[in-house]
Amino acid sequence: MEKLKRTHMCGELTLDDINKEVVLMGWVQKRRDLGGLVFIELRDRTGLIQIVFNEQISKEAFDKVQSVRTEYVLAVKGKVVKRSDETINLKLKTGKIEVYVETLKILSKSETPPFMVEEDNNVSEAVRLKFRYIDLRRPSMQKTFMTRYKITKLVREYLDKNGFIDIETPLLIRSTPEGARDYLVPSRVQPGKFYALPQSPQIFKQLLMLSGFDRYYQITKCLRDEDLRADRQPEFTQIDMEMSFIDVDDILSLNEKMIAKLFKEILDVDVSLPFKRMTYQEAMDRFGSDKPDMRFDMQLKDLTDIVSNCSFKVFNDAILNKGSVRAINVKGAAAIPRRQIDELIEFVKTYKAKGMVWIQVMEEGIKSPVAKFLTDEEMSLILKRMEADKGDLILMIADKNNSVVYDSLGHLRLEMGRRFNLIDKNKYEFLWVLDFPLLEYSEEEKRYVAMHHPFTSPKDEDLELLDSNPGSVRAKAYDMVINGVEIGGGSIRIHDTELQKKMFKILGFSDEAIQERFGFLVDAFKYGAPPHGGIAYGLDRLTMLMTGTENIRDVIAFPKTQNAVCLMTDAPSLVSEGQLEELHIKIEK
Amino acid sequence: MEKLKRTHMCGELTLDDINKEVVLMGWVQKRRDLGGLVFIELRDRTGLIQIVFNEQISKEAFDKVQSVRTEYVLAVKGKVVKRSDETINLKLKTGKIEVYVETLKILSKSETPPFMVEEDNNVSEAVRLKFRYIDLRRPSMQKTFMTRYKITKLVREYLDKNGFIDIETPLLIRSTPEGARDYLVPSRVQPGKFYALPQSPQIFKQLLMLSGFDRYYQITKCLRDEDLRADRQPEFTQIDMEMSFIDVDDILSLNEKMIAKLFKEILDVDVSLPFKRMTYQEAMDRFGSDKPDMRFDMQLKDLTDIVSNCSFKVFNDAILNKGSVRAINVKGAAAIPRRQIDELIEFVKTYKAKGMVWIQVMEEGIKSPVAKFLTDEEMSLILKRMEADKGDLILMIADKNNSVVYDSLGHLRLEMGRRFNLIDKNKYEFLWVLDFPLLEYSEEEKRYVAMHHPFTSPKDEDLELLDSNPGSVRAKAYDMVINGVEIGGGSIRIHDTELQKKMFKILGFSDEAIQERFGFLVDAFKYGAPPHGGIAYGLDRLTMLMTGTENIRDVIAFPKTQNAVCLMTDAPSLVSEGQLEELHIKIEK
Repeated sequence: MEKLKRTHMCGELTLDDINKEVVLMGWVQKRRDLGGLVFIELRDRTGLIQIVFNEQISKEAFDKVQSVRTEYVLAVKGKVVKRSDETINLKLKTGKIEVYVETLKILSKSETPPFMVEEDNNVSEAVRLKFRYIDLRRPSMQKTFMTRYKITKLVREYLDKNGFIDIETPLLIRSTPEGARDYLVPSRVQPGKFYALPQSPQIFKQLLMLSGFDRYYQITKCLRDEDLRADRQPEFTQIDMEMSFIDVDDILSLNEKMIAKLFKEILDVDVSLPFKRMTYQEAMDRFGSDKPDMRFDMQLKDLTDIVSNCSFKVFNDAILNKGSVRAINVKGAAAIPRRQIDELIEFVKTYKAKGMVWIQVMEEGIKSPVAKFLTDEEMSLILKRMEADKGDLILMIADKNNSVVYDSLGHLRLEMGRRFNLIDKNKYEFLWVLDFPLLEYSEEEKRYVAMHHPFTSPKDEDLELLDSNPGSVRAKAYDMVINGVEIGGGSIRIHDTELQKKMFKILGFSDEAIQERFGFLVDAFKYGAPPHGGIAYGLDRLTMLMTGTENIRDVIAFPKTQNAVCLMTDAPSLVSEGQLEELHIKIEK
Repeated sequence: MEKLKRTHMCGELTLDDINKEVVLMGWVQKRRDLGGLVFIELRDRTGLIQIVFNEQISKEAFDKVQSVRTEYVLAVKGKVVKRSDETINLKLKTGKIEVYVETLKILSKSETPPFMVEEDNNVSEAVRLKFRYIDLRRPSMQKTFMTRYKITKLVREYLDKNGFIDIETPLLIRSTPEGARDYLVPSRVQPGKFYALPQSPQIFKQLLMLSGFDRYYQITKCLRDEDLRADRQPEFTQIDMEMSFIDVDDILSLNEKMIAKLFKEILDVDVSLPFKRMTYQEAMDRFGSDKPDMRFDMQLKDLTDIVSNCSFKVFNDAILNKGSVRAINVKGAAAIPRRQIDELIEFVKTYKAKGMVWIQVMEEGIKSPVAKFLTDEEMSLILKRMEADKGDLILMIADKNNSVVYDSLGHLRLEMGRRFNLIDKNKYEFLWVLDFPLLEYSEEEKRYVAMHHPFTSPKDEDLELLDSNPGSVRAKAYDMVINGVEIGGGSIRIHDTELQKKMFKILGFSDEAIQERFGFLVDAFKYGAPPHGGIAYGLDRLTMLMTGTENIRDVIAFPKTQNAVCLMTDAPSLVSEGQLEELHIKIEK
């Protein structure tokens, strides 16, 4: 039989190809018999085209096509013809043409697939994950992975032009139990010892700067053995970079241009540069979040000064204990039913708020459980600060712990934004959040922990606070936030051995612990370390944002479930006794 | 103090920059005091430049530089000036200029490093690996990783232009104990179960073809828990690709063009296309190897027919047992001392040859221990076939096992090529080896094993031999060989479920074993599989070849020793009891 060699892709044929002899290969999307003809929509990665089997053109092909069903893989040779006006299908990009088949070769048969290759096929995600190779045939999935690929391609081009080189760092590394839980890999050659899989290439990229590579990047897998939430996977991909001899502004400027380029070339979105910049403190004060969604307003206001002398005990307690009273104004929401207010009270409890106070600014006057505790002047100052008009709803949180106030109001703001459709899905708001605190105090561990990681540099002007008031020291750390999602984050690193040692001490490490865990790193900094810093992006999250999905499994070709299981291959699995013996380990249930 | 912002890289300044005010940053390569001046060679990734401190120009900088030592990190501002003719240093690319320093900032101090950043520093590899971040500062190391990066960059560009998209496959996969030993990762969520780290993305890339992605590539880490040889590492990097709707010639043609592009753009080597092609059988017959080094001749010749009736028992035994007698001619080596012949006899024993026969074609006549067993006619036929002239040395191997004959003569050929300097180090010889056997019989396991892997397609014309004579079936498999190194290999895959099942059965898998190990894959092929095939390159080996090193650790930024240990971070290491408990495993020494 004649050997067929593909000449065109299905979705790329146009009116310009009319009368051409073409060879196409692809999957049968659907088959239709009509008036003694067989019509098939043939699918490849570029799209669909209708191919027509007609006994008059080729009896052999016509006979052969009788057995063809959905998802068969075909090679066809035929001529491109223009469709008559009445048969034009505007739903198809190629809907003005079709191919009259002269030769048909069935490359593969298909059993009836467990579900059709269609968008909105109403199939449970578990089934789609089990038959991932079928689900990935959907045009939207193909498009997603094309977008993901384009992101990495543009990033690579951009970083190359800016002098970065891609250097691979190891997967089998030393376990340093600080941060999330490591995945461990038992060593066969060194009984009882383990490698860890990297949570990030952090240490190695810093060592590459010490090695003089000047500008490094890598798009690489990182792994964390954590309990998974909806937007987490055990393995995820970072766009990771590090540069020497630079400061914060150099990194922000280089990176915002990169992201603007991605949005322009992939989504045709014009991004105005520079991005907005905001300190961590400002972000918390105005939006109750270090990753504010700037697509809508509804900012937090501090009412502490106004209510500091009122007779409402909850407010008083919060304020006396160094806490605060803050609020948002949900415009036009005054008429909210009591049932919904109760829901919101439950909602804020998730964020540890003990309660929520509301003020309904009704046509007929103020309605609020705290009205009786406030003087007219206090109430009127509140309304003024909240810029409240008739019809507005003010939601207030008081707590002695400011982070509870921020967190619950920040989430309440987002919730109200969603409920009242205040978020324009077609809008992108880009933001740098700067000057994160260097340390946070962990009540659990009764010590300071690094907010970013222990290699983050304090701001020069806060250096002297390291001893007197470590909690107030700000870091040279920055996050890139798009539409309320933290897309990337990084910092300028410490490049001074003494400062690094001091940092480890503040984090509560003994000299021995420093030597044991980070000895090689502390040593490395002794031999000429350049000032350096970097940033890492979550490629999965960035792809989610750019493809408009909220399911991380949609942007990973072969993802795992929330139990870290691959439903397709059934991994993890039992292994043989022999394998375990070689690794000198035993299962202990 | 004035904030300095780098304006130029050290190695990139030229005569065109004379009189420019520049800011440079880098490491102190060396410092020299002469005539009241201080000269420093400053180093960054691009190279070295001499900077000069003169009290007349800046007393402050001059005073400050007194404390500066090797490997200090400096920022300097100064003016580029032309060196006087007598001070030109032709060893430096920037040797015609120098920079008169006006401002000096010491960015980092350095203790005396454990070794100097110099080529040929005579430091043991163990020390260099421990202080890898210093060793990587050597210009040759910087160049190696630049070359490695250029390879990946050019590959990505080329594959992109040819319609390939980069799709990531998982690191945590299911263990399928066929092939090399898996690295295992205990699951915390599923007690007693394990993930494996991938030995290759083979199964996933095939599933991507079934998913309709058409052309996939990935530059990705693969891991094998094997005892390491000099050219192996526990983790290595593959350039991996797969394409649909193609046959062998499409893949060879696309790939040889890619490799030619790499050699042209990186080494300025013109590669003539197409590459030479040779079947596996021809490669074995002519070079005794499936990866022949074609940079020199010295081909194997089959002498079986000539000596089949001679009176030498060793030859007779080999031939009667379906073996053969083959030889190489080492031109001009007849005068080799007996001691060296004895060495060669020991050498071939490594490859299981029981002995070696030699014929010295001396000025004064033939000298050979087997001369007495051969008639004059036989000897003259041998000399004729071997194209032997006076002064030549013929080395013969006989064995009942042909693979021993090939293997020992093939290695002997390489050894003689090295000893007699027949290999031109500046020459590159490119070759495709085709038509590998599909199966090899494993005496150990008493069954056929896949020579490539179980998904490799047999050649169409050999399909009927699968039942009658599986050992003789040739595969649609190919290796790319450069200078005797297997740089890449691949195959057209089986895309027919029934054939795949048959293949598993020939490999001795029971129905249950097939279902248990490869069930999801066999299922996947039921729903419309396109014909497809691919290839994978060892990036480490390719980089070694292109940078001219024979040490794989030279092309990996943070490599492991032959005990799979990282000497810098001391991985693998002990982990805490708590970590093991969470993973439900126990160490059993």
